[in-house]
Amino acid sequence: MALIVQKYGGTSVGSVDRIQNVAAKIKEQWSKGNRMVVVVSARSGVTNDLIARAKALMPLPDERELDVLMAVGEQETIALTVMALHAIGVPAVSRTGAQAGIFTDSVHTRSRITKITGGDLNARLDEGKVVVVAGFQGVTNDGEVTTLGRGGSDLTAIAVAASIKADLCQIFTDVDGVYTADPRIVLSAKKMPELSYEEMLELASSGSKVMQSRSVEFAQKYNVPFEVRSSFNDQPGTIVKAITKTLEDAAIAGVALDRLQTRVTVNDLPDNPQAIASVFDDLGEAGLSVDMIIKNLGKEGKSNLTFSVTTDQFTRVEKVIGQTLKKLGSGTVRSAGEISKLSIVGVGMISHPGVAGTLFKALASVGINSELITTSEIKISVAIDPAKADAAVRAVHTAFGLDKA
Amino acid sequence: MALIVQKYGGTSVGSVDRIQNVAAKIKEQWSKGNRMVVVVSARSGVTNDLIARAKALMPLPDERELDVLMAVGEQETIALTVMALHAIGVPAVSRTGAQAGIFTDSVHTRSRITKITGGDLNARLDEGKVVVVAGFQGVTNDGEVTTLGRGGSDLTAIAVAASIKADLCQIFTDVDGVYTADPRIVLSAKKMPELSYEEMLELASSGSKVMQSRSVEFAQKYNVPFEVRSSFNDQPGTIVKAITKTLEDAAIAGVALDRLQTRVTVNDLPDNPQAIASVFDDLGEAGLSVDMIIKNLGKEGKSNLTFSVTTDQFTRVEKVIGQTLKKLGSGTVRSAGEISKLSIVGVGMISHPGVAGTLFKALASVGINSELITTSEIKISVAIDPAKADAAVRAVHTAFGLDKA
Repeated sequence: MALIVQKYGGTSVGSVDRIQNVAAKIKEQWSKGNRMVVVVSARSGVTNDLIARAKALMPLPDERELDVLMAVGEQETIALTVMALHAIGVPAVSRTGAQAGIFTDSVHTRSRITKITGGDLNARLDEGKVVVVAGFQGVTNDGEVTTLGRGGSDLTAIAVAASIKADLCQIFTDVDGVYTADPRIVLSAKKMPELSYEEMLELASSGSKVMQSRSVEFAQKYNVPFEVRSSFNDQPGTIVKAITKTLEDAAIAGVALDRLQTRVTVNDLPDNPQAIASVFDDLGEAGLSVDMIIKNLGKEGKSNLTFSVTTDQFTRVEKVIGQTLKKLGSGTVRSAGEISKLSIVGVGMISHPGVAGTLFKALASVGINSELITTSEIKISVAIDPAKADAAVRAVHTAFGLDKA
Repeated sequence: MALIVQKYGGTSVGSVDRIQNVAAKIKEQWSKGNRMVVVVSARSGVTNDLIARAKALMPLPDERELDVLMAVGEQETIALTVMALHAIGVPAVSRTGAQAGIFTDSVHTRSRITKITGGDLNARLDEGKVVVVAGFQGVTNDGEVTTLGRGGSDLTAIAVAASIKADLCQIFTDVDGVYTADPRIVLSAKKMPELSYEEMLELASSGSKVMQSRSVEFAQKYNVPFEVRSSFNDQPGTIVKAITKTLEDAAIAGVALDRLQTRVTVNDLPDNPQAIASVFDDLGEAGLSVDMIIKNLGKEGKSNLTFSVTTDQFTRVEKVIGQTLKKLGSGTVRSAGEISKLSIVGVGMISHPGVAGTLFKALASVGINSELITTSEIKISVAIDPAKADAAVRAVHTAFGLDKA
C-alpha cells in the first residue's frame, strides 16, 4: 500500500473516452489499496480556445483576467474525471488549486508556488477517496486565481507529492519515458530506466520536450522521485531520482537535439566589457535568453559576438539588440541562419575522460566541424547544421555505445 | 451618479461580438460617472455542453462535482467581459461568486444564498472600476463551489444589489419587459412600465418566463427595485417595485398563459382526509408540485381528485401516485390530457368586484367552460383547452380593457 500521485496531461484527458481510460488506470492502482491523488490538465485544445477568445477581444489581455479564464480548463477536467471514477465505483472528490491549498505569488500567468498546505487532502484520502486536483492553477494569499505557466500541471503534481510525502509521483504523458535519443531519429534508442535529476535537467534544457526544467528543479529540491510514463500503454517508464553514479556506468546517458535555434551575429561592437554586458543585460531585461555564446576579436578594435536563440524569439532579439547598438553607437545585428543544437548529457562524464574527443570524432564522421560549443559538468552542446542533425545524432548515439541494450 | 447593478444573461454574452456589445452598454452608464457592478451568466449553450459531457460519463453525476463543472461557464464570461471593457478603456476587474462573497448552503445544484459579504466590491468601486461578478455561483463556508439553480444569475444580481444597497438593478434579457399578455399571441399587448412584486410573482408562477419566482421573492424581501429590459435595444423596460395601487388603477395588470400542463385524475381513492393527504405528501417528498386541485365525491364512498402538473413531471407523478395507491389499497391514476393554464393577475383585483364575472364571460365567448379553477388575492387561474388558448387570451385581454394604451 503506497501513497501515489499521478498526473495526466491534456492529451490523456482529451475526450470523454480518454477520461474513462484514465479512470480505469486510476482504479487499477486504487483497487490494490493504494492511496491516490490525481492531478489533471485541461483537455487538449481547451486552453488555446480560451486564449483565442481572449485575444479576439484584446491583443494583450490583462494577465489577472487571463488566469481567471485559463483556470476554467482544469476545473472542467477535475469534475469530469471524478464523474468517470464514480461511474466505475471509485469514491472520488475534486479539488481546485485553491481548495488543494496551492498558494503562489501574484505574478499572473507564470506564478511561482510559495506554499502548499495540501488543504484537506489527507482527510479525504483517509476516507478512501481518490482526490482529483486541478493542475496548473493556484491561488494567492488574497484569493486571486493564478496559473503556473508552461509545464504547470507537472509542477502541481511534483509539489503535491512533496507536500503529502508521496511514495511515488507518476507523470503520465504521450511519450513512454526518456530515451537515449529521440526514437524517431535513432531506431535503436533505448528507454532509460533511471535518470538523475541533474541529467533530466540538462536534457530538459537541451531540447527534450518531456518535461520543463522548473518541475525537475522542484523535484530535486524536495527530493521527490518521479516516473515519466505513457498513459496509452502499461510499460514502465523512466524514473528520475537522486542517483550516485559509479565508475562502471556509461559515460553519457543520452543525446538530445533542439532542432530550431537561430544563430545571431552581432558585428563591430565596441571591444569593451561594458558594451558586451549591455547587449546581454538588455536581452535579459526583455525576458530573452541566449545560449552558446562565442566572442571573436573583429577588425579595428571592435569585437564580434555569435550566440543562439530559440527561433521564435529572434524577431524580438533583433529589435532589442538594435536599440542597444543605437545606444552604443556602433555595431550591426543579423541572423546567421538556423542551427540545431546537439547535446550529450550524463553524470558519468565527470569520471570518463575522452568524452569530448569521442563526440567530435563522431561529428567529424558526418562532416560537422562546429565552432559554437558550450559545456557544463554533465553536458556538452554543439551547434550543428540542421540538414545534418539526424545523421549527427545517430553517429553520436553509436559512438557512445548507446545502441547496445 | 448612481450605484447600478446590471445583469446580462447567456444570450446577451453568447459570442465575442455580443460581449463587446455588452461592454459598450456598460461603458455608456460608467461614462456618466455611475458606479457599476455587472453580473453575467455563462455564454448560452456552454452550461448545456458541460452537462452533456458529464452525462456521457454518468447518467446522474454527483451534484457536488456538477457544481464544480458548471461554475466554469460563468468564470469564463467574467474574464472575457473584463477584457472587452479593458479594450474600450474601461477599468474593470472580475470576481467569481466566492470572491464576491456569495455564501450559500451546501445543497448542490440548487443552493440557497445564506449571506452576501460583497467581498471587496466597494473598495474596487471606489477605485473607479467596473466589477464583473459571476452569476449563478456561490461558495459554502467550507469553500465548496455551489450553484444556485435555475434563474441563479438573476438571483445573484438582486442579492448583490441588496448587499451593496444599489440604487437600481437592471436585468438585461432577451425580452424588453413584462407585457399585459404574450405579444406573440396578443398583438395589442402593452409593455407595463411598472409592476408590484406581488404581481410579478404571480406572473412568474403563471407561465411568464421572464423571471423565476425566487429572484422576485428575494427582491421583495430586501426591497430591491429592479428593471427587466432588453440587451438588444435601448427601450426602457418594466420596473418591478413595491407599489400601493389606488382605486383608479386597472383591475388586472396582465394575462399569463402556461401552455403545457397535464391534467391528472386519481379515481376511487378512499374518501378520508388521510388518503388525500398521503397523495400530496408523497408528491411533495418527491419534489413534485401540483396546481389547481379539485375533489369530487365518487361512487360508493370513494373520492376522485383532479389536478394539474407540468407535463415534463407527469411520468414521475404517475409513478409516485401509483406507489401511494398501492399503499392505500385502492384507486387508479391516469392522465386526462393536456391543458393550458390561463391566469389574470393584478393587485387591483382586490378593490374591483366583478373580476371573476368578466373573466368567465370572456371565456364563455370563445366556448370555454372550465372546471379547474384556483384563485389567490391577486390572481385567478383556469385550466382551458390548449386548442382554444390563444383565442381565450385575446378575449380576456380585450374584456379587461388591456388593448387600450
